[in-house]
Amino acid sequence: MTTETVLDFDRTNRIGLDEAIFCAGKSVDQIGAILELANARGAGLLLTRLTVEKLEGLSAANRDAIDYCAVSSTGFFGSLKPIESRGAIAIVAAGTSDIGVAREAERTLRHAGVGATVIADVGVAGLWRLTERLEEIRTHPIVIAAAGMDAALASVLGGLVSSTIICVPTSIGYGAAEGGRTALNAMLASCAPGLVVCNIDNGYGAASAALRILSSSERLRRSGV
Amino acid sequence: MTTETVLDFDRTNRIGLDEAIFCAGKSVDQIGAILELANARGAGLLLTRLTVEKLEGLSAANRDAIDYCAVSSTGFFGSLKPIESRGAIAIVAAGTSDIGVAREAERTLRHAGVGATVIADVGVAGLWRLTERLEEIRTHPIVIAAAGMDAALASVLGGLVSSTIICVPTSIGYGAAEGGRTALNAMLASCAPGLVVCNIDNGYGAASAALRILSSSERLRRSGV
Amino acid sequence: MTTETVLDFDRTNRIGLDEAIFCAGKSVDQIGAILELANARGAGLLLTRLTVEKLEGLSAANRDAIDYCAVSSTGFFGSLKPIESRGAIAIVAAGTSDIGVAREAERTLRHAGVGATVIADVGVAGLWRLTERLEEIRTHPIVIAAAGMDAALASVLGGLVSSTIICVPTSIGYGAAEGGRTALNAMLASCAPGLVVCNIDNGYGAASAALRILSSSERLRRSGV
Amino acid sequence: MTTETVLDFDRTNRIGLDEAIFCAGKSVDQIGAILELANARGAGLLLTRLTVEKLEGLSAANRDAIDYCAVSSTGFFGSLKPIESRGAIAIVAAGTSDIGVAREAERTLRHAGVGATVIADVGVAGLWRLTERLEEIRTHPIVIAAAGMDAALASVLGGLVSSTIICVPTSIGYGAAEGGRTALNAMLASCAPGLVVCNIDNGYGAASAALRILSSSERLRRSGV
Amino acid sequence: MTTETVLDFDRTNRIGLDEAIFCAGKSVDQIGAILELANARGAGLLLTRLTVEKLEGLSAANRDAIDYCAVSSTGFFGSLKPIESRGAIAIVAAGTSDIGVAREAERTLRHAGVGATVIADVGVAGLWRLTERLEEIRTHPIVIAAAGMDAALASVLGGLVSSTIICVPTSIGYGAAEGGRTALNAMLASCAPGLVVCNIDNGYGAASAALRILSSSERLRRSGV
Amino acid sequence: MTTETVLDFDRTNRIGLDEAIFCAGKSVDQIGAILELANARGAGLLLTRLTVEKLEGLSAANRDAIDYCAVSSTGFFGSLKPIESRGAIAIVAAGTSDIGVAREAERTLRHAGVGATVIADVGVAGLWRLTERLEEIRTHPIVIAAAGMDAALASVLGGLVSSTIICVPTSIGYGAAEGGRTALNAMLASCAPGLVVCNIDNGYGAASAALRILSSSERLRRSGV
Amino acid sequence: MTTETVLDFDRTNRIGLDEAIFCAGKSVDQIGAILELANARGAGLLLTRLTVEKLEGLSAANRDAIDYCAVSSTGFFGSLKPIESRGAIAIVAAGTSDIGVAREAERTLRHAGVGATVIADVGVAGLWRLTERLEEIRTHPIVIAAAGMDAALASVLGGLVSSTIICVPTSIGYGAAEGGRTALNAMLASCAPGLVVCNIDNGYGAASAALRILSSSERLRRSGV
Amino acid sequence: MTTETVLDFDRTNRIGLDEAIFCAGKSVDQIGAILELANARGAGLLLTRLTVEKLEGLSAANRDAIDYCAVSSTGFFGSLKPIESRGAIAIVAAGTSDIGVAREAERTLRHAGVGATVIADVGVAGLWRLTERLEEIRTHPIVIAAAGMDAALASVLGGLVSSTIICVPTSIGYGAAEGGRTALNAMLASCAPGLVVCNIDNGYGAASAALRILSSSERLRRSGV
Repeated sequence: MTTETVLDFDRTNRIGLDEAIFCAGKSVDQIGAILELANARGAGLLLTRLTVEKLEGLSAANRDAIDYCAVSSTGFFGSLKPIESRGAIAIVAAGTSDIGVAREAERTLRHAGVGATVIADVGVAGLWRLTERLEEIRTHPIVIAAAGMDAALASVLGGLVSSTIICVPTSIGYGAAEGGRTALNAMLASCAPGLVVCNIDNGYGAASAALRILSSSERLRRSGV
Repeated sequence: MTTETVLDFDRTNRIGLDEAIFCAGKSVDQIGAILELANARGAGLLLTRLTVEKLEGLSAANRDAIDYCAVSSTGFFGSLKPIESRGAIAIVAAGTSDIGVAREAERTLRHAGVGATVIADVGVAGLWRLTERLEEIRTHPIVIAAAGMDAALASVLGGLVSSTIICVPTSIGYGAAEGGRTALNAMLASCAPGLVVCNIDNGYGAASAALRILSSSERLRRSGV
Repeated sequence: MTTETVLDFDRTNRIGLDEAIFCAGKSVDQIGAILELANARGAGLLLTRLTVEKLEGLSAANRDAIDYCAVSSTGFFGSLKPIESRGAIAIVAAGTSDIGVAREAERTLRHAGVGATVIADVGVAGLWRLTERLEEIRTHPIVIAAAGMDAALASVLGGLVSSTIICVPTSIGYGAAEGGRTALNAMLASCAPGLVVCNIDNGYGAASAALRILSSSERLRRSGV
Repeated sequence: MTTETVLDFDRTNRIGLDEAIFCAGKSVDQIGAILELANARGAGLLLTRLTVEKLEGLSAANRDAIDYCAVSSTGFFGSLKPIESRGAIAIVAAGTSDIGVAREAERTLRHAGVGATVIADVGVAGLWRLTERLEEIRTHPIVIAAAGMDAALASVLGGLVSSTIICVPTSIGYGAAEGGRTALNAMLASCAPGLVVCNIDNGYGAASAALRILSSSERLRRSGV
Repeated sequence: MTTETVLDFDRTNRIGLDEAIFCAGKSVDQIGAILELANARGAGLLLTRLTVEKLEGLSAANRDAIDYCAVSSTGFFGSLKPIESRGAIAIVAAGTSDIGVAREAERTLRHAGVGATVIADVGVAGLWRLTERLEEIRTHPIVIAAAGMDAALASVLGGLVSSTIICVPTSIGYGAAEGGRTALNAMLASCAPGLVVCNIDNGYGAASAALRILSSSERLRRSGV
Repeated sequence: MTTETVLDFDRTNRIGLDEAIFCAGKSVDQIGAILELANARGAGLLLTRLTVEKLEGLSAANRDAIDYCAVSSTGFFGSLKPIESRGAIAIVAAGTSDIGVAREAERTLRHAGVGATVIADVGVAGLWRLTERLEEIRTHPIVIAAAGMDAALASVLGGLVSSTIICVPTSIGYGAAEGGRTALNAMLASCAPGLVVCNIDNGYGAASAALRILSSSERLRRSGV
Repeated sequence: MTTETVLDFDRTNRIGLDEAIFCAGKSVDQIGAILELANARGAGLLLTRLTVEKLEGLSAANRDAIDYCAVSSTGFFGSLKPIESRGAIAIVAAGTSDIGVAREAERTLRHAGVGATVIADVGVAGLWRLTERLEEIRTHPIVIAAAGMDAALASVLGGLVSSTIICVPTSIGYGAAEGGRTALNAMLASCAPGLVVCNIDNGYGAASAALRILSSSERLRRSGV
Repeated sequence: MTTETVLDFDRTNRIGLDEAIFCAGKSVDQIGAILELANARGAGLLLTRLTVEKLEGLSAANRDAIDYCAVSSTGFFGSLKPIESRGAIAIVAAGTSDIGVAREAERTLRHAGVGATVIADVGVAGLWRLTERLEEIRTHPIVIAAAGMDAALASVLGGLVSSTIICVPTSIGYGAAEGGRTALNAMLASCAPGLVVCNIDNGYGAASAALRILSSSERLRRSGV
């Protein structure tokens, strides 16, 4: 099986994002083989959608090399780079149930050396909770907004905050929430202008987009556009 | 064709709501026959989804007996009862494009002798517009909320206002708005508790629900529950 | 985790509905933390979608403080207010399988101090069962109708009863029942006027809507509209 | 083009149903060519989904040979067989808007020499209208039920009548009616047992099924099963 | 719980079909209560969608009173009436995987005293298998056709056989089979005229429809239409 | 606008298929600009989805240079290569309404110098029509099968013919035909093995696939695999 | 009607984006009233989804004040600010048919004083066309990618370019393209990390997102994060 | 049960493909009965979708006669024919998670005596991985492309390679990947011409199509078309 996996160690140079391993579609054997490839090169890896069951199926050596977070089902394999920047990104989650997705985004940013502020339980059903944190949110040029069900948080933020807003619909809810598709569609069809959207539950993707934007900002700064 | 239409003149006694004629699936001939049945009994009728084309296809006598509103495609046929109550119901519309649905609700209430307050263009993308009218909205025990696209207005109202909130999704928007289904699903899956929802663009239905609630309130008052 | 949950103890004042905890998307640890926050304030809480597995995962102290109902997967945490009103609300369930949803509505009302009449197994496939109970249903100004599959009960009730009718589609059925979406759509597209609809299986939402209507009625009574 | 159409004049012998021409997907030229093939053999034909525009595009000779019904968009081409049986089949339509589909069924039966009773405007929103006609409906061993929106008529009939019930959902309605899919699904998921269903707006198909059942009954009678 | 279930023992008189118990949405306790109600009246019952797990959860007395079939998940509770007619109905299944649905139909007919011929594994991918059995199928005035995936069997039968054809789509297949919806839609949109369709996997419903048709045939015979 | 269109004149060398112009999403001006680019290079072009309205909007010179077919809405612009091979490909259409799609495939092949046999009106509702032509179909190593509604033709062919079968669902039908999606899904989920499928109404794509297969066969012949 | 429209002239201060008028759901009268409001304040406006028919319905004075682009259905009303920055944003369109959406994005940026580079007809079916322009694309820190059908352009760009990539699915295509939903879903589910997505055909939204990012970059530059 | 399964041992003669057993919808007993039928005739069989659980449920004798592959859930029962051809077919998989489907295709070909080249982990997010293998892929006249999520690999291959390309969408991904439907639709709506598509995860079907094409090529070679 090992010859069937081609790790993209050069990805950082090409698109500015480290390779990450999406574990949901992979067997424990496949994940183990990938970790050995990475280990042989001395490369660190971010693991996403790593269940506790799969974690426990790995060899003791691999398991010990992983800094695991059960809330977000993510792991840091190998050494972790220091935090190099803070203050640019806020991650705002509508409800307690959206925290797993928010943490996936936070950990993805952390793996890339970027610290983020997590602000949870500010859904619009209790608008005062959002209002109380609004000034704090506004200080961040980039906001990741995670919300399920009606995803109204995204539209309200979009009308109140001038920051770049990256929306992540979550699969929280039932019935008409349609496994996150209603939140996804509501964010895409938002009455607030200029929101951008990632796949359902894709905290990793939202963080990657934020990293692209940080990189673009750096390029804009250098070019003076 | 006349033998194929059975008007339900007794409906008011049975469920407290006048018969109304939904014109969308009916030919001009069918509508004309219904108007003659009503005229013969001296009954007034509310006509909904009556396009200008169908209106103009009716006989001059029938056309003259109709008080028509092009914005909502509704008509009052025959005599109109006076307004008997005011102040109970606010109709709140998110955007300029939602006004047709709001007016259909307003005219349905008016046909039943109930006056309503229409508050338009208060979508949450400019939350200050809603905030400015919030105290006025709160004075109404029943609120009909019409919104399309992400329908975030419904959730925000639901968290700020203790009134009964009847939501009407509208078919405004494109792409992920899915012809109103996203607004419908977002209202059903709202994070705010106790919202109730009508069919897409169904201003008539929302007004009918409000009339049922007024009638229930009257019964509750009499019974002292 | 505790800093990530912001309970909305002021919600009753703001919108007239107590905070309730939807347990489906929350871990046992998150639920436990919420119960401790509530306990510290001496606040009672309604818990919905609380499975037996999660209940048993709670601490013995928390478990003992919960009055649990397995049919509706609901729990009352802490002290329960007395029943303050009766006779306003009937909950009508089409089939034996819809009783869980009906009980969720009944328990939500009970938690708010409102008693309701539950009338079960009156689906229209055996219309005589509904006809036998019709006069009893009519005495209630507010009717919550829970039905799955074709949801024909809602339309039949809507044509026979002048009360406010809050429809709750249930996920009962298979194949073309589409997990409750057919019942939901049939209720929304009902030929009977003025029905309002909640999310699939959302007994809690239907009860919350009924509480809003009771509150609106009280306001209408006071204002004399 | 003529070589591309192969009329199935033997179909009556094979499956007991005459060939009919579904005009919706065919050009005026293709329909004209088919009529000439039929004329050359002296065969009569039923034409369905024939719009007035296409009718008027045909040659005068063909047009004159067609007995056209605008309500159902059907035409009888050539000679018509006499009515050979009556009383077996009732066609029940929920609303005025469903009459086109009901008439398509009636005309298909008429073309096969079978008379049917049409009973219109008996939707369950005014249940008394159905109740008044129930005994008459019950005298027919086969009932075709056409209804759109929530299609509750089908379930109510299914619980009250022992006849064979062939359901035809119609595309009447908007929004959550989903162009007839809600009626279709509600009929398929009906709580009443033993309903069978045809495609949306397929009055022709419902009549064809009724003809198959008449033929099966005749065979059962002969075999004495 | 017992007061919440209202068995419809009069259903046979009203619509000619015995009450059956759909076990999928019911708890073991609810099923047990129903069996006791039936036992108290000395009534037999057909149980559908009864899993082995629920069967084993019943009391020993109830379990012993059930003649269970694991292939179709059906049970006969109490005494069984003798077979009163044979030869009218064939049940044709496309593949080995469709046999469960075919057996549910067969057992439903058996419970009503009607014997049926089951012909399995005649899907059109090996058309010779169908051709070999075609004459046998044709001798039955009523044919129930169970097929999943593309459901082509229904259309081929519809073009070759003049019998009444009741189609049951099955949930066999994956991907584009969409859990039976493709088979359902293909049967509804069949190019063969006069097919009628039941819900996905609804062998019980197909058999009930066949029983209605047998009853209609008997009435037609008596009335001499 | 001309700088915005980059014709791929090298495509024939790269993938063995000539560039074709899909006119549906292009304005008359855009099509005209493309024809001038082609004319300047002396290249011939296949135009698909070219409506009569757009054809008539072109300049007289361009219009005269187009050999147009209204049935398939295709045009040959410029000189046409001679037919170089015959006998490899049959195009089989289920009904008269599917002929437009079949002709699009035939004309695409013709433009590439390949002659094809078109066999129309052989849908399985009259299986004898297919059986009569079966031996003729079998002589072609490649079969393109165009069918709408239930698309049962594809499965029947797949079980009877060893040729490569390229399926093209058509949008013929209504209601449950879902604009061709039912035919598409039925072909994908067919019980016959080894069918391959193109997009709805995509006669051009089916012909292009057949050209790829002819080219692969030539390569296999040369390599002697 | 004028009292029903509340223009948000303060939006620029609040979220950094000028108010724009989405004309699709508005009548000519409503648009005219809005233009007069804007004119009275001396404010310029961007008009989107303005059809030629609606443009021609406006008063001559309003029409003359609009700089209209038929390809993108956009108009600049009133005075236009000068271009203040260039070189930051590239707009890449997969095919000729996607240019309307690309131009809507370009014109939205232009209205805000930002120049963009449009690179058209670089879809991946002719990968060399993209490869030829890749270095040019890479020089832009922000890339808007418009593509319909399979939207493969987005994934290929995402793997080759480190810039921020804002994806706009277009409704180009037919059948399985599902009116742009396939492109939308493919962009959301892309194998390339960190793509963000806007609603179908929403060139305005993509440009607004780019403006948010430019503003965020400016803030990051100032704060030195 | 044995009389209900009719194995199609003649299928090879009729359509050139051996019978294979799709185990997903069959019980262990049904599979065992089929193996005994095959064993009695001395026929080998390919088993697909055979889970480890079902494998272990078989008799020891049957289990020992199966050469099982857990990655693809396939088994070879009985003797295996030698590899008779190589070099014609490449199987290209986008990601590590798509290998199960690729192996199902490889094993189906192997069972028919055809060797194939498997090239894995060449998805377009790292286009260099595909570019490195492109010349190798091009040497194969037939390419099977397995990809999930956005399935961009198929379009890129289709624009670069002249071989016949059989696409297999996989169910890899989450959210907007919609269980493989997005990949399926993207492949069907590809901007690259002449791609053909199989059902989601249907490696067996793709291999069967490849075998049909090999057979067609052999016939074309013999006929000299």
